[in-house]
Amino acid sequence: MEVEQGALPQKEDFSGWYNEVLWRAEIMDVRYPVKGLYVWYPFGFALRKNVYGILRSLLDHDHEEALFPLLIPETELAKEAEHIKGFEEEVYWVTHGGTSPLEVKLALRPTSECAIYPMYHLWVRSHADLPLRIYQIVNSFRYETKHTRPLIRLREITSFKEAHTVHASWEDAERQVQAAIALYRQFYAALAVPVIVSKRPDWDKFPGADYTIAVDTIMPDGRTLQIGTVHHLGDHFSKTFSITFEDERGEQQYAQQTCYGISERSIAALISTHGDGKGLVLPPSVAPVQVVVVPITIGKRKEEVLAAAEEVAGTLSSAGFRVKTDTRDLRPGAKYYYWEMRGVPLRLEVGPRDIDAGQVTAVTRLGEKSTIPRSSLAPGVGTVLDGVAAALSERGEEHMRTHARVVTTIEEMSAAVEHGVAIVPWCGERECADFIEETVNASVLGTEVQAACAPPCEGPCVACGKPGTAALVGRSY
Amino acid sequence: MEVEQGALPQKEDFSGWYNEVLWRAEIMDVRYPVKGLYVWYPFGFALRKNVYGILRSLLDHDHEEALFPLLIPETELAKEAEHIKGFEEEVYWVTHGGTSPLEVKLALRPTSECAIYPMYHLWVRSHADLPLRIYQIVNSFRYETKHTRPLIRLREITSFKEAHTVHASWEDAERQVQAAIALYRQFYAALAVPVIVSKRPDWDKFPGADYTIAVDTIMPDGRTLQIGTVHHLGDHFSKTFSITFEDERGEQQYAQQTCYGISERSIAALISTHGDGKGLVLPPSVAPVQVVVVPITIGKRKEEVLAAAEEVAGTLSSAGFRVKTDTRDLRPGAKYYYWEMRGVPLRLEVGPRDIDAGQVTAVTRLGEKSTIPRSSLAPGVGTVLDGVAAALSERGEEHMRTHARVVTTIEEMSAAVEHGVAIVPWCGERECADFIEETVNASVLGTEVQAACAPPCEGPCVACGKPGTAALVGRSY
Repeated sequence: MEVEQGALPQKEDFSGWYNEVLWRAEIMDVRYPVKGLYVWYPFGFALRKNVYGILRSLLDHDHEEALFPLLIPETELAKEAEHIKGFEEEVYWVTHGGTSPLEVKLALRPTSECAIYPMYHLWVRSHADLPLRIYQIVNSFRYETKHTRPLIRLREITSFKEAHTVHASWEDAERQVQAAIALYRQFYAALAVPVIVSKRPDWDKFPGADYTIAVDTIMPDGRTLQIGTVHHLGDHFSKTFSITFEDERGEQQYAQQTCYGISERSIAALISTHGDGKGLVLPPSVAPVQVVVVPITIGKRKEEVLAAAEEVAGTLSSAGFRVKTDTRDLRPGAKYYYWEMRGVPLRLEVGPRDIDAGQVTAVTRLGEKSTIPRSSLAPGVGTVLDGVAAALSERGEEHMRTHARVVTTIEEMSAAVEHGVAIVPWCGERECADFIEETVNASVLGTEVQAACAPPCEGPCVACGKPGTAALVGRSY
Repeated sequence: MEVEQGALPQKEDFSGWYNEVLWRAEIMDVRYPVKGLYVWYPFGFALRKNVYGILRSLLDHDHEEALFPLLIPETELAKEAEHIKGFEEEVYWVTHGGTSPLEVKLALRPTSECAIYPMYHLWVRSHADLPLRIYQIVNSFRYETKHTRPLIRLREITSFKEAHTVHASWEDAERQVQAAIALYRQFYAALAVPVIVSKRPDWDKFPGADYTIAVDTIMPDGRTLQIGTVHHLGDHFSKTFSITFEDERGEQQYAQQTCYGISERSIAALISTHGDGKGLVLPPSVAPVQVVVVPITIGKRKEEVLAAAEEVAGTLSSAGFRVKTDTRDLRPGAKYYYWEMRGVPLRLEVGPRDIDAGQVTAVTRLGEKSTIPRSSLAPGVGTVLDGVAAALSERGEEHMRTHARVVTTIEEMSAAVEHGVAIVPWCGERECADFIEETVNASVLGTEVQAACAPPCEGPCVACGKPGTAALVGRSY
């Protein structure tokens, strides 16, 4: 709907690049007349649908999808003291219906514990009802006072996947925490987005949780982005909302709970990890268009070329690929630019010479050129797309390797956080964390660090010299 | 999660039956602590997913899905005078973010014209951008002061599918109105829900529309339920939001628009049309479970029976059916009750005798019993399910035939609206409509009536005797 032109900012200017690519590739329109609210273009929505399709299929193995109301009465939201304290500054309040004031103010859910757990109070009766694993994908709201940014810091989080589970014992809930982390790892592996998992410091855990495990990625500018969290809630909420069950001996017990969430930040990570100076680069698993067929009709034999292009597209479409044929009246170069911007993993060019040779010319979004015989088109395209997926995973891991450094001194840490994260020994004391944070202007993000390419470290605390274990230090979005 | 027991109210007590079946079949939980807000149980959500999957697949032929913000600033909502007048009594207002009052109040969308059209103002530039056909499926809100009812009259409409199209001419937009009606007909045919299409009287059209075409069904108690509307917006909104395009001669023109919506009332209609005294009856196209396999393990050969049941389920699952095997430690009768309540179209019983005969015993939700050879299980099940679908369509049409009557006198009309709708000649004057409405305590719902089983009528207006054409008269939800 827009005429785009000119080059993108270099990716080194990450913020400029990110803002440009979002509208040039028609992911989000930022011109909606309320700060922090954005519009998903159809192309962006198609990408979102594929990404959330993967998330759903992973969850659906042993979770059930449901849907709870957006509006939470103040009386419910205020029940868990820590929880409301954590959210009261950023809740949107509905105070009027029509021209009348409401008797009880209604919050737009910032997260749904207080909408779901009054129902769990009714639903959970016996140990036979457990474990209960339910998720929903909904819009939720935060009155952000910080700088907002599409997909990353929004006032309407349009795509909040939140799972809420109930268990008979603290240990069962802990196993669920581990299962959720494994699931999130699978999800991000499918997006070829590399992650670091760590346990947030106590002062940074979810309001009302026993502890919080976070999934972070490292953005191109070296800052971390939290793209998933898993909370062990213990019995904080079950005591508040009276979620009890009769155990096998016939005694009433408080349930143990977990919850875990992923938002459209997953898509911000996907875009940021892979994109380049020409626009989006999308893994075939989620690309709305996996293959674009461009007929090269310069000169004669136009009808023949168009027919061949349609035939190629038809063959691939029947084989299950998401394919577009671009027959617009534009120069091939303009079409290449257009589809590269939208991250299409594979372009197939069909010209007179290709027809004569019984082939198509294949150019991947990563710039690799080859030919594929028409006689084995679908398997040939499958192989090339698998190659793109593998190359993106490799690039992601390489990014992690070069941006996460295991270090042991303040100086090394200070250098590391300039373009990524540091993994350093830390004794676990708040005082030392404060010292680290002030000294290098970065945060102690977590402990019990799990990162494929950065092994855990032990050693003297980088601040006080007492025995320490691996902590993740970085500057976060 | 709940232990259900006892018989449902008779369907003749429609309101009682409806409320009971919704929670017994685990469609919606009405116990959420805010009036007019309800919770989708996982089973209900699975039904919703299938229903909206059909709607999406129909729309995706020539529409694109997108997503616009929930919150509409008061300044935008107030722009179209008729529109705001139509909605101001029932808009929820967000007035505070955290503890601070907002500078501009934000409405929870009652419908999204005022969220979408400021973007269309930016997106539509040239005749080449038209037609533009976009839809979204979102939650929307009405501060209903009337009696609320799950799926039918809600304060949070959780599943509002709204399409918004833009065209170069009034006639193009009118063709889109017709296309939308055809699409809605296809959708409801897939649900085996019979519909009547009519043009709403001028005083009942959508605020800001040129005219409104409505899709109604007749509920078991004879009252009509509006389950879809299509609005020709003309240039009312394009003038307000300045949606213009350059035509082929290079001149700026105001665009012509339509919008059309369907909500979870579609599911209310589905449930109400087909359900019976044992619970839901679901068409195979949308049933979350199409086939339940019940092993009959009374007596010996238990392991063999369980293995055979699993094999039957596996075969059907591989063939693409949605299948469950019920191996719970319950009497077969309790299992039958459970799955009948949930509307499963087909139950397969597998017992020792079936194994010996190389067959399964098939019982449809409509009570028809047969046997299917194991050697042709999948095609056999397909045939039986097709039969259920056909029978439900037939039952739907029969319901329409017996509840929509073409009549010509006040007396006949008065009798007809006691258990359905009347189609009567009406001259088109408001005065006569008022007379009709007062006399029979029912509404003139529309003109230009299209109903498969009730042909249009012409004749003297039932009120004044002047020449009239078919009008739909009924009592609506």
